[in-house]
Amino acid sequence: APQLDGYFKQVDDMSDAFIERLRQAVAIPSISSEAARRPDVVRMGHWLADELNKLGAQAELRPLGKQHGTDLDLPPVVLARYGNDKNKRTILVYGHYDVQPAEKEDGWETEPFELTVKEDGRMLGRGSTDDKGPVLGWLNAIEAHKAAGIEFPVNLLMCFEGMEEYGSDGLDDLINAEAKKYFADADAVCISDNYWLGTERPCLTYGLRGCNYYSIEVSGPGADLHSGVFGGTAQEPMTDLVRILGSLVDTDGKIQIPGIAEQVAPVTAEEDGLYDGISFTMETLHESLGSKTTIFDDKKKTLMARWRNPSLSIHGIEGAFSAPGAKTVIPAKVIGKFSIRTVPNMEIEKTNECVAKYVEDVFKKLGSKNTMKVYPQHCGNWWVASPKHWNFAAAAKATERVWGVQPDFTREGGSIPVTLTFEQATGKNVLLLPMGSSTDGAHSINEKLDKRNYIEGTKLLGAYLHYVAEEPQN
Amino acid sequence: APQLDGYFKQVDDMSDAFIERLRQAVAIPSISSEAARRPDVVRMGHWLADELNKLGAQAELRPLGKQHGTDLDLPPVVLARYGNDKNKRTILVYGHYDVQPAEKEDGWETEPFELTVKEDGRMLGRGSTDDKGPVLGWLNAIEAHKAAGIEFPVNLLMCFEGMEEYGSDGLDDLINAEAKKYFADADAVCISDNYWLGTERPCLTYGLRGCNYYSIEVSGPGADLHSGVFGGTAQEPMTDLVRILGSLVDTDGKIQIPGIAEQVAPVTAEEDGLYDGISFTMETLHESLGSKTTIFDDKKKTLMARWRNPSLSIHGIEGAFSAPGAKTVIPAKVIGKFSIRTVPNMEIEKTNECVAKYVEDVFKKLGSKNTMKVYPQHCGNWWVASPKHWNFAAAAKATERVWGVQPDFTREGGSIPVTLTFEQATGKNVLLLPMGSSTDGAHSINEKLDKRNYIEGTKLLGAYLHYVAEEPQN
Ligand SMILES: [Zn+2]
Ligand SMILES: [Zn+2]
Ligand SMILES: [Zn+2]
Ligand SMILES: [Zn+2]
Repeated sequence: APQLDGYFKQVDDMSDAFIERLRQAVAIPSISSEAARRPDVVRMGHWLADELNKLGAQAELRPLGKQHGTDLDLPPVVLARYGNDKNKRTILVYGHYDVQPAEKEDGWETEPFELTVKEDGRMLGRGSTDDKGPVLGWLNAIEAHKAAGIEFPVNLLMCFEGMEEYGSDGLDDLINAEAKKYFADADAVCISDNYWLGTERPCLTYGLRGCNYYSIEVSGPGADLHSGVFGGTAQEPMTDLVRILGSLVDTDGKIQIPGIAEQVAPVTAEEDGLYDGISFTMETLHESLGSKTTIFDDKKKTLMARWRNPSLSIHGIEGAFSAPGAKTVIPAKVIGKFSIRTVPNMEIEKTNECVAKYVEDVFKKLGSKNTMKVYPQHCGNWWVASPKHWNFAAAAKATERVWGVQPDFTREGGSIPVTLTFEQATGKNVLLLPMGSSTDGAHSINEKLDKRNYIEGTKLLGAYLHYVAEEPQN
Repeated sequence: APQLDGYFKQVDDMSDAFIERLRQAVAIPSISSEAARRPDVVRMGHWLADELNKLGAQAELRPLGKQHGTDLDLPPVVLARYGNDKNKRTILVYGHYDVQPAEKEDGWETEPFELTVKEDGRMLGRGSTDDKGPVLGWLNAIEAHKAAGIEFPVNLLMCFEGMEEYGSDGLDDLINAEAKKYFADADAVCISDNYWLGTERPCLTYGLRGCNYYSIEVSGPGADLHSGVFGGTAQEPMTDLVRILGSLVDTDGKIQIPGIAEQVAPVTAEEDGLYDGISFTMETLHESLGSKTTIFDDKKKTLMARWRNPSLSIHGIEGAFSAPGAKTVIPAKVIGKFSIRTVPNMEIEKTNECVAKYVEDVFKKLGSKNTMKVYPQHCGNWWVASPKHWNFAAAAKATERVWGVQPDFTREGGSIPVTLTFEQATGKNVLLLPMGSSTDGAHSINEKLDKRNYIEGTKLLGAYLHYVAEEPQN
């Protein structure tokens, strides 16, 4: 890809303008979870479409109807196309222009909606890394190509939504509806909305765990009771619930439900060899955990536990006393919440059946007169792509060119549901190509994107498109 | 007690005036838990002292200083004396003039602070039965004696507080300070602030369970974690906590902590014979429970479980996810709350030691790297008086005279801490002499006192004082 030197130089030359573009984007508080901020989210969508059109893309705003259960209009999805050359590959990219809530009072060292560039290169601001920086990376890449007079190597399809931080209401329907229309000529998909595993080594991400979220409801008395009057005479729902919750998983994270471990794909010799090379240390984990209370003491077992093994977490109890202080209540109805992170080759339905059967068996053994129900609240499948696809090969070459190192091939423990939606709707390979690093604090106070990651990341996105154009079909 | 016929007739004749007195008292919204209502609580104390003084008692308002941890003045305690004849016995009575919160919007069928007398005799209003009706019963008794020209049979000392529904802040100190001063000549104590076991049979109450309230704190990570990122790699405090909580008690209320059951006083043959005669049915219990999820199917075991056996209730968890919906959090620090209702001959310290040892053992067996602390939040002792004391004998005779039946001798499962304070401070026998019935709904919407219970209850309080005057020393 000989044109890259010119492209890189152009990106460096325009870096102030690119930071200015990010500053404008951060200044719009597009918080999707707050109804009062909805006009700002819509404004952000319009701003983004305008920017794209100014760059010569064809951008349009797609309405998604009303927000589920409300009278509130959803923010539009920005769909855009840049280039329509049948002789070029077409890459579909996704990002989101909405952000998490933020207030200075939460403890920010700067105004969250004023991008502040520090001397050490940190660019603080809500949305800087999640996900306005990466979204603007694509715009910057277009602009730098134009400015440098370098032909854009692919056709670019863009899908930028405004509800990602609040459940992506309506997005799946749009993706499915456009798969054979607006997205019809996509050859591969690229999403830049996750993070490096650490702060130095770039990575390409090819796997995500799924999540099955369950409720266990135990009820008995008609109303909350006073433990003085009824303690010892009534069977208490909380007693049953904590006994059930206590039977699900042990301190070392071993899931006690039969039929879960049996579904997990065995480790191949090839996979077994991958972990040692990953740039990750237990010290980094201890730092992000804020303690040394890890289950494992070594990196390989820890990475496997996060990426390729299921886990079960108990999140809390609804309906019980949860405030500070002391209250002598016997709660009448309590709902325990837990979730299982799922991995290949676990099946959602089969897992739900195992959970229901186990919980019902445990409850039966308690011999309780109370009523128990266990049901999934929501289930999202795991995702694993082939990292040998030309889409990943191109990204790996681009990474080596920009960062001078081979990327780690990583998976993640969490879910990015849209990944699976794109894969299933388009039938194409999906690549997760992160721009930011592990210390960016996406949903925390003082969210930042390092200037280096933004500028080199813009180079990376452009370089990826060049290698994509050259890479042979698998 | 030959004067009682005249006294009873006088009470009947004045019943409208007594209801009017209750109406005035209910009209003052003396909610002690709400700072904004504090002036109403103080106004209620002044109203009560004024009423007493009008009746010829010597009432005074005793300030208690500031409410703990605030700048708010506590409402005064009303101390009053009626009669000072060395040849008469002196009875110290206690009650409270503050009430629980109430708003029409909570679901009341009437305005909570307007006493509404229904055709069926229910007198609805906040504080009607808890505890303004019983407190005014003493004032009514004085007034009816005066009006009928019947000599008051005893000296009456009164102690009416305004913070009972919010922890009786400052009261213990005052009782201890006045035990050998204002209360020095008390021969016995009578408290009317509890309820019949059912709706037809009056009772005298001679026992209360104590309550030890515990927290179990488990912490590990420095902050709440995302279960996608950390699930499977970190030891989760919630996992440890639910396993500990699940080990405390079984579905049938059997406490699993060694050393608790061993402290419980054995059932004597005499006690064993008492339960069958008590006016109580499982149907009543099912009705108040709103379900049939009782531990026992028979009355005797149920009454023993409520009155004379310890029980353990798990109240909830602080620091975990407790809202509706789904949140994939791994809470960093969770605090489980449970309490043990204590009975003779359990000792507070010994019980705390058993709890600490057991919980620490269970936690140790988990093999967790998290940090666990277990500690009592507050402990109040059980109380059992001798129902053969002349104080009880007088009350039993009065009950038979007014209601035409022998009272049940009952204990309660809950605590009324002031009972023990009076017993220990004065060294005298304490009697609990309820006026209202089990359906009054003291802390609920539509709190009521039946007109019959108010008027016959006023007769009962006066008759009790006459029998007290006659009853020989034990
Ligand atoms: Zn994001
Ligand atoms: Zn996000
Ligand atoms: Zn009361
Ligand atoms: Zn009360």
